Amino acid sequence: MAAQGLVIVNTGHGKGKTTAAFGQALRAAGQGMKVCVIQFIKGQTKTGEALAFTSAFPGQVELHLAGTGFTWKQEMETVKEAALAGWQLAREKILSDAYDLIVLDELTYLIGLGIVPEDEIITLFRARPKRLHLVITGRDASEGLIDYADLVTEMRVIKHPYQNGIKAQKGIEF
Amino acid sequence: MAAQGLVIVNTGHGKGKTTAAFGQALRAAGQGMKVCVIQFIKGQTKTGEALAFTSAFPGQVELHLAGTGFTWKQEMETVKEAALAGWQLAREKILSDAYDLIVLDELTYLIGLGIVPEDEIITLFRARPKRLHLVITGRDASEGLIDYADLVTEMRVIKHPYQNGIKAQKGIEF
Repeated sequence: MAAQGLVIVNTGHGKGKTTAAFGQALRAAGQGMKVCVIQFIKGQTKTGEALAFTSAFPGQVELHLAGTGFTWKQEMETVKEAALAGWQLAREKILSDAYDLIVLDELTYLIGLGIVPEDEIITLFRARPKRLHLVITGRDASEGLIDYADLVTEMRVIKHPYQNGIKAQKGIEF
Repeated sequence: MAAQGLVIVNTGHGKGKTTAAFGQALRAAGQGMKVCVIQFIKGQTKTGEALAFTSAFPGQVELHLAGTGFTWKQEMETVKEAALAGWQLAREKILSDAYDLIVLDELTYLIGLGIVPEDEIITLFRARPKRLHLVITGRDASEGLIDYADLVTEMRVIKHPYQNGIKAQKGIEF
């Protein structure tokens, strides 16, 4: 019997949503699975995770950036365009049946910002190959997405170093 | 100025505590950092994360198992012995100044089970090299540990697949 792919959602306002998704990708890669990661919204290219996957798992873990970096100064149209291109790529990857695990990092914002309707996203998820696991991250996951998912975890902030004036550091935050 | 090492705690009853710690280790490895992971309590050797780190980052990421697998059938003495040996190893690694990041997976149980006093743990953390980041995982982190940490995240279960009768799967759970 083929394993049933799970839909995993990491949400909440705390740290660790993307980090856990990358840990999940690492675990899957270690078990010989084919992995594709699509990062929405974010535009940073030289992250530790990107460098690690590119050097350590070439041909087994793919990483795509579908963001421009999210700042309020930026034109919403530019953010939207990049996100829609990423969503188109996600559709192709999901339906390709070439992967065991696909990470859609920060996907929840596409619903939250009204860029892609929740219905369209869940319809695509339902049409995916049976074995395919999906990991979705982002704040404020919508009700329909939580309802459809198999595993949902909320990352809650108990304490954050910025509260103590400590800056983001290479290797830790990116 | 040397960066100030952070103490990061992933706690709570939800998924993603260890997964996020491994994601953190991956990110740090990608940025060229030296990483040591010590897994307490757990006794499983062929996990995806172990296989991935051993094959992908030899000499850069070290992984040590200091557990026997935690089951209630097991003698508490055996669990305790393995944990104490792991704690001794952690002490050596922390003071060695050979690492940028050390993950102490499931360390909170050592406090919770009365194997190592919280005071002794925090005293060692205070004596660590300035640059050294620590990531600690496990349920029910003690108050003193939370107080000492820079970044604390609680992973909360919103929905769990076992509730729907779906079994743990290779590449996802281990």
